[in-house]
Amino acid sequence: MRALRLNAWGEPPSLVELPTPEPGPGEVLLKIAGAGACHSDIHLMDWSAEQAPPAIAPPFTLGHENTGTIAALGAGVSGWEIGDPVAVYGPWGCGRCRPCRLSAENLCERTGELGGMGGGLGFDGGMADYELVPDQRLLVPLGDLDPIAAAPLTDAGLTPYHAIKAALPLLVPGSTAVVIGVGGLGHMAVQIVGELSPARIVAVDTSEQKLDHARRLGAEEALLSGPETAARIRELTGGIGAELVVDLVGAQPTVELAAAVVRSGGHVSVVGIAGGTVPVGNGTVPFDATFTGPYWGSAVELREVLALAAAGRLRADVETFPLEQAMTAYEKMRAGALVGRAVITP
Amino acid sequence: MRALRLNAWGEPPSLVELPTPEPGPGEVLLKIAGAGACHSDIHLMDWSAEQAPPAIAPPFTLGHENTGTIAALGAGVSGWEIGDPVAVYGPWGCGRCRPCRLSAENLCERTGELGGMGGGLGFDGGMADYELVPDQRLLVPLGDLDPIAAAPLTDAGLTPYHAIKAALPLLVPGSTAVVIGVGGLGHMAVQIVGELSPARIVAVDTSEQKLDHARRLGAEEALLSGPETAARIRELTGGIGAELVVDLVGAQPTVELAAAVVRSGGHVSVVGIAGGTVPVGNGTVPFDATFTGPYWGSAVELREVLALAAAGRLRADVETFPLEQAMTAYEKMRAGALVGRAVITP
Amino acid sequence: MRALRLNAWGEPPSLVELPTPEPGPGEVLLKIAGAGACHSDIHLMDWSAEQAPPAIAPPFTLGHENTGTIAALGAGVSGWEIGDPVAVYGPWGCGRCRPCRLSAENLCERTGELGGMGGGLGFDGGMADYELVPDQRLLVPLGDLDPIAAAPLTDAGLTPYHAIKAALPLLVPGSTAVVIGVGGLGHMAVQIVGELSPARIVAVDTSEQKLDHARRLGAEEALLSGPETAARIRELTGGIGAELVVDLVGAQPTVELAAAVVRSGGHVSVVGIAGGTVPVGNGTVPFDATFTGPYWGSAVELREVLALAAAGRLRADVETFPLEQAMTAYEKMRAGALVGRAVITP
Amino acid sequence: MRALRLNAWGEPPSLVELPTPEPGPGEVLLKIAGAGACHSDIHLMDWSAEQAPPAIAPPFTLGHENTGTIAALGAGVSGWEIGDPVAVYGPWGCGRCRPCRLSAENLCERTGELGGMGGGLGFDGGMADYELVPDQRLLVPLGDLDPIAAAPLTDAGLTPYHAIKAALPLLVPGSTAVVIGVGGLGHMAVQIVGELSPARIVAVDTSEQKLDHARRLGAEEALLSGPETAARIRELTGGIGAELVVDLVGAQPTVELAAAVVRSGGHVSVVGIAGGTVPVGNGTVPFDATFTGPYWGSAVELREVLALAAAGRLRADVETFPLEQAMTAYEKMRAGALVGRAVITP
Repeated sequence: MRALRLNAWGEPPSLVELPTPEPGPGEVLLKIAGAGACHSDIHLMDWSAEQAPPAIAPPFTLGHENTGTIAALGAGVSGWEIGDPVAVYGPWGCGRCRPCRLSAENLCERTGELGGMGGGLGFDGGMADYELVPDQRLLVPLGDLDPIAAAPLTDAGLTPYHAIKAALPLLVPGSTAVVIGVGGLGHMAVQIVGELSPARIVAVDTSEQKLDHARRLGAEEALLSGPETAARIRELTGGIGAELVVDLVGAQPTVELAAAVVRSGGHVSVVGIAGGTVPVGNGTVPFDATFTGPYWGSAVELREVLALAAAGRLRADVETFPLEQAMTAYEKMRAGALVGRAVITP
Repeated sequence: MRALRLNAWGEPPSLVELPTPEPGPGEVLLKIAGAGACHSDIHLMDWSAEQAPPAIAPPFTLGHENTGTIAALGAGVSGWEIGDPVAVYGPWGCGRCRPCRLSAENLCERTGELGGMGGGLGFDGGMADYELVPDQRLLVPLGDLDPIAAAPLTDAGLTPYHAIKAALPLLVPGSTAVVIGVGGLGHMAVQIVGELSPARIVAVDTSEQKLDHARRLGAEEALLSGPETAARIRELTGGIGAELVVDLVGAQPTVELAAAVVRSGGHVSVVGIAGGTVPVGNGTVPFDATFTGPYWGSAVELREVLALAAAGRLRADVETFPLEQAMTAYEKMRAGALVGRAVITP
Repeated sequence: MRALRLNAWGEPPSLVELPTPEPGPGEVLLKIAGAGACHSDIHLMDWSAEQAPPAIAPPFTLGHENTGTIAALGAGVSGWEIGDPVAVYGPWGCGRCRPCRLSAENLCERTGELGGMGGGLGFDGGMADYELVPDQRLLVPLGDLDPIAAAPLTDAGLTPYHAIKAALPLLVPGSTAVVIGVGGLGHMAVQIVGELSPARIVAVDTSEQKLDHARRLGAEEALLSGPETAARIRELTGGIGAELVVDLVGAQPTVELAAAVVRSGGHVSVVGIAGGTVPVGNGTVPFDATFTGPYWGSAVELREVLALAAAGRLRADVETFPLEQAMTAYEKMRAGALVGRAVITP
Repeated sequence: MRALRLNAWGEPPSLVELPTPEPGPGEVLLKIAGAGACHSDIHLMDWSAEQAPPAIAPPFTLGHENTGTIAALGAGVSGWEIGDPVAVYGPWGCGRCRPCRLSAENLCERTGELGGMGGGLGFDGGMADYELVPDQRLLVPLGDLDPIAAAPLTDAGLTPYHAIKAALPLLVPGSTAVVIGVGGLGHMAVQIVGELSPARIVAVDTSEQKLDHARRLGAEEALLSGPETAARIRELTGGIGAELVVDLVGAQPTVELAAAVVRSGGHVSVVGIAGGTVPVGNGTVPFDATFTGPYWGSAVELREVLALAAAGRLRADVETFPLEQAMTAYEKMRAGALVGRAVITP
């Protein structure tokens, strides 16, 4: 089979021919339908050996947002049939620690000891004709969902869903949720807040086009990022601030905006990985506001994301590319020229 | 009546004679039994006008940890009798916003617009023979509790209680709570974690004497603060980290210790006001760990603190001083020579 | 002023002339804009002295769903202005117990000792030109909401809101909420579930017209009540059952339907007072399903209901009657001839 | 190997010789250390085919409270070593539905379709030299716990733990938890409430000896069951009632006691299976009180129970019997002559 392979840190990936894997006991072989291309893949391609996290080591096949159909079942796997359409839950943990037993393998206690963080993240991923999934617990049924449209939901949908779900008790009627950055994850976030809560949504971006997108997706307010944005949000909230700020950018100016507009007792979730930080201490930020940097989401949360999509309440805009043009997708991503989430369709 | 009065920023307080207030409609006059002396009073005494928070302005009577008996009821106040022993809930909010309606006046939405933050904090407090409480909603029945021993519970007990209560769902059997600083608030925190949860308690301090105190109060581990402390706590938790870190010091080294030992998905509460901060972003701290700087607690939480004390499950060590020696108490506090919480007993 | 007065158990109410009350210290006088007529008023009119709850005793003015403007403030009341439009929070508790301090006076620990359960329920209510409200804590600002449309929200909106809010953590994407009875409270319930959660809504009623109403308000399924209803709901949920059943009828057949369709771990809230009961024990109902009979809601929940309405997300259909035709409204209610919630507009 | 086998409904079990099973792919073979004898086994022995739940069918080996050491690993099982001491999580679900993915296989959505409800409950259990466990997800590490003392914790510990944990937010300082029945599960419940919460514990039983036991385990009040018990508990709670009632008996008089003493907004958990029921509707029980009949607990909750035991905070009294005397244990159980939980030690 073909596979887009990261062979070594600092080298561009290459499309190679590999033997199609055979599932051992407990494993499942998937024929890939869609493999989402993610910004974090670009980090993988660009990192030097020094920069890369020690939990991951090439060579491995890229692609950590995957859907497909079951092609073969290893010995001892029951409850699934050949041909079943499934999504692959991305963060692969030990399966035995407390968070893993609650399906939150994104917070596995043994991360770093496992040889990788998931398919496409140290283990072989989905930018290939087939992917070997090590355990059926990492599969979520897709039902009638379009597998190509569903692929990005496993990450670009799940990650903001997890961040938002942690703050749902704050999002009562009359509350305000600020979504900073209306790109791949942010346009999911706007939809998710709207479906899960009655909060007023304030979207912030540097692009008028993305703000229009946010408005169409249900944002009550959409504000250009600038020196007046914090004051404007304070004003919109009667001087009190927002109950939730989800920052999908995570740069220094955006996290500072987040800290400036969150209310006392509110929540700031820095999802974006652009390196910004807020100095959190006593009295340096609004009292009792909580600040966090989340990672991905749980497998049960992925089921919920897919249920939202199945009910027609959540959709990702996608642009498809055949496997041999995967690098074209990443080039367009680097150039900011994608109009939706890129999905590779082997 | 006599009152210990802060007359102006930057001036030492003085004991003066004032007319005993008469309660207007809705107000309650309290004969003070105990008024706790708090480290934050020293900030009040030392601040210049530039350093002081704008929500507070002298002159006012000091003392924000107060208990007493009802001396007079204003018109329209029902449900209380002359002589009832009560504690005064310290943070005085607007009484009408959402947090105030949930008894969390510590998070009042109109803080800063009210002319003060509480009795002894802009409004006249309890270091006097009498205190005027503006509304019966700020009273909590003391029952049979010793009012002198109960005075510090309204702040030194309530503040860590509030911080710990926010994290209770994390404190399952097998979890670990780290308490940094076993002083006035910290020795409360050790007891509170022990009474409210089955978590293992790890106390950290720079004083062996205080660590012994922590052990007697139920800490399973008590560690001297030093370069090896973080590694030792990691080791104690199987490399995973602690579910909760309550930092009663809040200095730069202690908040760094907190960030170093909290687990993914855990919680760090920086209660101490020594100015330390943790740079929170995505990937700069363990994933999904939440960081916050809390303020005091709610009136319902104060009821819970007093209920703990009434059941014999929580006690503050106190040292009493007559009103005319209040400044002696603060001098001993500055010198680190207090053996318990100082309570002024007019 | 005029007032519709229940003079004695078993006698029809009469419209009488009374002196306009003057607010004492801490009290507020309201000029009534709207007073909703509620089915429970008919119970009040029909009860004999033996049937009536001991916590309530005539004579008193009817009307417990009230809005108006502030006409006069008693001594010591601050933070409100003459003319402010407000809703009256209906269940009046002691104001000092734990639930009251959390604004849940519906669960006051001293209910039964207070001489009444609220304005229109033992104390003088809003079917009059003016209502005397004993404390400003019982007022909620109306803002720009139409006070007539808002009156029924204080009960017919708040009661299902409270019932549904208790179950929100169950209403994840992919879950099902069954609303039994799409009348005055039920048509609120359909809207509330839709705004607060992504759950699929299944409405059940005996009237096709009401089912059409439910569909227009967002119910995905609307089923005629009958012998096949339970089986149909089981089928819709893949045999698993519903996460939440809110029964606004509460008759024996409807509570049995509720018990038959709730899933293990789900929640049944019997809001209707038609006397039906489910025998709950171990193994007699699905495991870990919780059953409750709620009462009204908290003042903070009322703020949330009004915020939903202010955002255009919740509306009650109302039919207005002048005060002198209040009894006509109740006659139409008895006859089932109201097309919306009746609101008396003095 | 030897196995205590239920061959058919209505027949007494017999000790037979069976081939030692070999673990297939994904399976684990356990050498049994302890197998707790449970009252529900007596139901299994006594049921006629008509009375038995359809989800279970003989023949199968008894014993659903099991601990042991890993004797053999099937193909594809990693993360465990031969000799590892483990407890077996008892309720075996499909492993793929939402509750199962959260480790709550006690609430599996496919219960009844699986051919059994667990080892010793339709599948072969632990009253044998070896037990075959179908998946490693059903194992929980025992660490240094005594496997014989730990065996009953998997059911007699886990079941009340699950019931109590659901109500923990109610158990604030000053609250009251009533434990009805201080037998095998009840003496666990008293310890669990004491370790997990600051609630005052009121134990109720018909035996003075068991009440003494409850007092020694930390119950503040221990009351003989009788006509005055409800009034006494009301009095102890200032007329308000208890926040939590856990009824480990579940007979008609005990569930009626539970309903009579729970407060509004409280929780009643009917754990005992003696067939009693409370008629729950609107106004028939205290408002907003929730009633439920729980079943066992989750695997993560079992980890928590074992962590309590490992910390020395929870222990079951046990009496051991060799496998060939298992029926003696059940005879003593029927006769009420056991002084602790019977554990069979093959």
